[in-house]
This record gives sequence, C-alpha cells and structure tokens, in this order.
Amino acid sequence: MMFEYYEKEAPLAFEEYLRIDHFKLKEFVSAVFQALQVSKDDACTVADVIVAADLAGISSHGVQRIRRYVDGIRVGNVNVKSHIRVVSESEAVALVDADNGLGQVAASKAMDLAVKKAEKCGIGLTLVRNSNHFGIAGYYSMKAVERGFIGVTLTNSEKLVAYTNTLGRSLGTNPIAVGIPKKKPPPILFDAATSVVPVGKIELYKKLHKEIREGWVVDEFGESLSGDATSIHKKVRENKAAILPIGGLGEELGGHKGSGLSFMIDVISGVLSGAAWGVHVGYTVGDKPSNVGHTLLAINIESLMSKGEFFSRIEKYIQEIKSTPKHSKAERIWIPGEKSWLTMQTRRKKGIPIYKTIYEDLRELANELKVHWILN
Amino acid sequence: MMFEYYEKEAPLAFEEYLRIDHFKLKEFVSAVFQALQVSKDDACTVADVIVAADLAGISSHGVQRIRRYVDGIRVGNVNVKSHIRVVSESEAVALVDADNGLGQVAASKAMDLAVKKAEKCGIGLTLVRNSNHFGIAGYYSMKAVERGFIGVTLTNSEKLVAYTNTLGRSLGTNPIAVGIPKKKPPPILFDAATSVVPVGKIELYKKLHKEIREGWVVDEFGESLSGDATSIHKKVRENKAAILPIGGLGEELGGHKGSGLSFMIDVISGVLSGAAWGVHVGYTVGDKPSNVGHTLLAINIESLMSKGEFFSRIEKYIQEIKSTPKHSKAERIWIPGEKSWLTMQTRRKKGIPIYKTIYEDLRELANELKVHWILN
Repeated sequence: MMFEYYEKEAPLAFEEYLRIDHFKLKEFVSAVFQALQVSKDDACTVADVIVAADLAGISSHGVQRIRRYVDGIRVGNVNVKSHIRVVSESEAVALVDADNGLGQVAASKAMDLAVKKAEKCGIGLTLVRNSNHFGIAGYYSMKAVERGFIGVTLTNSEKLVAYTNTLGRSLGTNPIAVGIPKKKPPPILFDAATSVVPVGKIELYKKLHKEIREGWVVDEFGESLSGDATSIHKKVRENKAAILPIGGLGEELGGHKGSGLSFMIDVISGVLSGAAWGVHVGYTVGDKPSNVGHTLLAINIESLMSKGEFFSRIEKYIQEIKSTPKHSKAERIWIPGEKSWLTMQTRRKKGIPIYKTIYEDLRELANELKVHWILN
Repeated sequence: MMFEYYEKEAPLAFEEYLRIDHFKLKEFVSAVFQALQVSKDDACTVADVIVAADLAGISSHGVQRIRRYVDGIRVGNVNVKSHIRVVSESEAVALVDADNGLGQVAASKAMDLAVKKAEKCGIGLTLVRNSNHFGIAGYYSMKAVERGFIGVTLTNSEKLVAYTNTLGRSLGTNPIAVGIPKKKPPPILFDAATSVVPVGKIELYKKLHKEIREGWVVDEFGESLSGDATSIHKKVRENKAAILPIGGLGEELGGHKGSGLSFMIDVISGVLSGAAWGVHVGYTVGDKPSNVGHTLLAINIESLMSKGEFFSRIEKYIQEIKSTPKHSKAERIWIPGEKSWLTMQTRRKKGIPIYKTIYEDLRELANELKVHWILN
C-alpha cells in the first residue's frame, strides 16, 4: 500500500510554519519540564502526551499549550514533586490521589492500574482526584489499546460550556475517549469533547483568522454568537460567552443530550472521585489547585471473546461502513481515529508543523529556563 | 412540598384518550405475554419494563409497542422458552447468551449479575448476545440505582441512523442510559438515543399530526427532510430515509460525534458480545433472530466513597445547576431524569393516558389471545 500523506489540520501557508522532527520536539519539551524540577520520568510522560497531540493534528493540546503548564508550575499552582498515591482499592476499582501533580503523569499511572485490574478481573476502573489538565483524553485510552485492551477515558475540565436552558459557563468540555484495538493499524479511537467544538477549535480559528459559524457559542444572554474568532474567544475567556453542548441550544436538536452526557461524565470523574465538579474545576494558572477528576477504564477483550475472533469481526464491520454509499458532499467516510492516525504517520515522516509564533515562544521559553535550544 | 403534576408528553385532547391505572395495565400486559406461553415471572418482567415506559412518558416504548413483541413471538422470531445462560465469566465480567428470548428478561438478569459482581469487585460488566429489543435502556440502569449502584446500560438496535458522511441507515439509535442514586428522589437518569431523536418521537409526531422540523431526518440522497410526519416515517421504514446522529448532518456541528459514539456502543454491545452489529441487527418481527447485543455495567459507589458523602456532593451539584440563571426562552432547568420522574409520579396518581386507538388495539389483542379484559 502506498503511503498516504494526510493532515487533519492543514497547516497555513509555507512561510508561516516550520517542520520539526517529533523526537527532537519531545526531547525539548521534556527538557523544559525537567528545568522546572519535574523528574526525568515524569517530564518524558508529559512530553509524550503533548507531542502526541501535535502528531495527531490536535495542535490546541500540543506545544502551544506548554506555556499554560509552565505558568501553572511557576505560580506554584501545580505540584511538580507530587506523591501520587492509591487512596483505596478493591479488586477491580481504585481511587488515586494525584496530589495536585501533572495530570498526564497521574492519568498514565491510573490507566496502567486499570489495565492491571482488567487483566485479572476482566474490567478495571481507576478514578483520579486532585489532578490537573491532562491533555488529550485519547492518549490514555491508547495506552490500554497498545496492550490489547479496550480503553475508556473521561475527565472533567474548567467551565466553558452552558448547561442546557441556562446562561453562562457551568460545565467543562468534558471529553470521552474510547479506544478499540485492531489487528492492523489504525486502531479505532473515538475522542470527542461533549461540546459542539472543543475550545481549542475556537483558539485555532482565532489563529487562522477564520469566522466562527452560528451554533457553536452563545453570549451571556444565550443569543448565538458568530463572526470574528478573536473577539468570541475573548468573550469566552471573560465569562461573557459559553460554548454550546453537542446538540446545540435548547432541546430541539438534542442539546440536553450533550449537556446531560457532560454532566454524567462530571458526576463520575468529579463527584465520585472526590475531585471538584462543574464551576469549581480550576484553571491550570489559577489561584487554587484545579482539582480535576479523571476516569480511566480498561476492558479485557479476552474475558469475553478470543482476540482473533474480535479482530476479524471488527474488521468486517469497518469494511461494511467503508463500503456504504458516500454522501455527495462528503470527502470521505472516516472511522473514528483514522484522521488522527494518518496525520500521525504523515508528521512522523515530514515533521510536525509549528507556527512561527509558537516556535519563537518556545525559543523564549528555552532562554527563560536556560534549556538548550535544539529546535534549529 | 406540594405535589406537582407534570407530564413530559402532554396527552392530546381529553376525548382522545383514557386514563388507565398502571397496576391494572401491568396486570393486563403480563396476562398477554402469559397467553403466549411466556412464564409468569418473565411476563411480569416484560410488563414492568413496558409500563415503566408509559409511566415515564416514553409512550413509544410503552403498550403501543406490545404488538411488535407479540407479533415477534407469533411468527416464531422470539423464543419464549429461552434458556438464558452465562457463557463465560471472570471476576468482574460475564457474557450472557439470551437464547433469542425477550430482551427485557435477559437484560434484567444481566444487570443483576453486574450488580452482584460490583458488590464484590467494585465494578461489574455483563454483555448479552442473541437478545431482542429490550424497551427503555433506562429501566436497567434504574435496577442498579434501586440497589444503590451507578448503572450504565447500552444496546445496539435495528438500523435507522445514517453514519456520518454516508447515505442510508447503517446504525441503530443505540442509546446510552446512566443512572445515579441520590438520597432523596428523583434519582438522576440520563437516557438518550445517540440519534438527534429516537424513532419513537417521529412515531409520536405522526400520531399527533405534527410537522417534522429540519435536521432530524435525511432522504436517500442525504438531503434534509421536513414536514409531514406520516410520509417521513414511512420513508424511514422503507429505507428511503434515515435519522441523523446527534450533531446532525456532516461534521460542522458534531455529527461525527453522535455517529462515532453510536458506533462505539455497537462495538462493545454487538461486536464484543458476539451479537449482530450495524445493518445486521434484526427487527423483532423479521425473518431471522434480531441478535441484539446489550451492555450492562454497575459501579459500587462505596468502593470509592461513602454513600453519605456522595449523596451530599451530588445534592450540592444539583442545587448549583438549579440556581444557574435560566435562559429566557427556557421553561425550566432540568436535571436528567427529572421530567420522567415527575411524569411517573403524576401518572401513578392520575393513571396512564392511553390513546383510544391503542386502547382498541389492546382490546382486540385480548380477544385474539382470549385474555380477560380488565381495562374497562
């Protein structure tokens, strides 16, 4: 099969970005966190999650977000010497306290624990409290997938979304990520915010000077906002606008479904874990610990069916979807995770496109932290 | 607190329906199934699920659907003497074969098993294969809730929904139901099809002679259909139209999220259980067993947090949502499950409104099956 170059987020004009080798980028990001007294192991984990986002074409969660984590550490709102511990445990369930450490580290360990429990019991669930923003949810589901398990990841997050029939931001974009192993790549990875769009998409539109369409954001009176992404993004940050849940405004097109699903994710990840919920979930660079809560679940396929049979069945299902007549306005029929996977393969070969503004910011960060600049 | 009368589905004009006591209705439905050689226990279970739908204001899944189950049994496509068995089991997971029996019976037993496993391990998962349509998904989550557990129910179902970027029906309305116990009623119950609307809503609009709005259904060429509900419902049934996933057509408003979530529900409930998936899931009155697959999951709250603490936290969260400023166009701020619960309380007192056409059909059914007519 010929290699297919595909990028989920088409980068801007050539002169606006550079391509950086992903190994080098990871090494650099790891060095940044080590310069902030994060242990080498933990820094590698964080770097892996951040660069995975850039590889997958989810640049909102990539290196452009390092500043947020760095600032969170600098203002003392994220604990780099966290002592992650298992608070309580039963045969198939564990509760982990992240000690206000980096979310990436806690969630990785929590998924490892869920997989370990699933190995023995068929299913394993770990909840995490006192954590911070953990990057892309799909990363942790993929950790389970790499070991042949089905992985489910949920998290709550800072308030950005309007609960149906209310004004203002009261829910996070609370994503759900489900990863399913396959015999041959790409694996299946469904990774979606329960809002119409993740806030990263609005950030991206701002960067690309694209207009925001109707149906994504409402103002403080619940009226639809559209147009200039910069002013809309500013309004969201100033609590003068909120993102809509999947299904949009009101109940006519199922807004209460998106809103309700987000709420359920918060009840399990936030309320049941002992973390914050709803409006109480903090921002990384805030004046109090974020107290984010995560849910990590692993299912042992072999406790239900032989891997061979499962792989053959899932392959058939995908073939059937792929051979369904295509909508005339659609470019292609996609399986969840396929776009990200193709983007990842492409960027492993061609490098990760980094906008020059981000590139300069990384260089400045290197200066500030006296980190060796290797991204030339 | 004064009792508040509320009905989620406001019934038609007074002369078009009768109010029937729910105990009587349950007794009658149970007698119908017993007349079809279903055991008394199983008939009671089926009747309880069906009447629970009518009580909750989900009449599409109530007694108006008895015909479908009855016909399925009569044509020999549903096995009333099914031998439900546990095919395989590990500490926290079980696989159940429903032997082509009534879905309500298999799913009830499967949730009992999931709760039993969660009691011991903290979490329990049961998948079911070779099953049939099981009615409202929320019923089984509530079985867990009644015993103090969090319950999650998923199922696949006959094809009705267009997978994003394709034409025609290839996914079920594959619902997800999450039930959360509370100290005082109503419990939280999120129960939603992963389509913009369940097919029952289109059936209801047909009955009410209401017009279907844009954004719910597309025709065989992927163009939006709106207007007369009767002709749209006919087109869906004839495979000339499909319901859209949550998020609607294409990807702009997140249609791929609804479609992807539905697909993941099918992968776990259908592919991993050994049941049918996608277009292969049968219709109750078809020429082959439906082979529906279900997922029943229970989480033991006490394996993570004391019940008292959980109840107090969830109560606070709900109070916070309820005191959020209301959207000027909204009637009220709802917590998932609240509408159904109020409807249930109202109908327990006032009786269940049954349309006269349905009432006559039930009387005819009683005649056909020589069941004593008690609904006078």
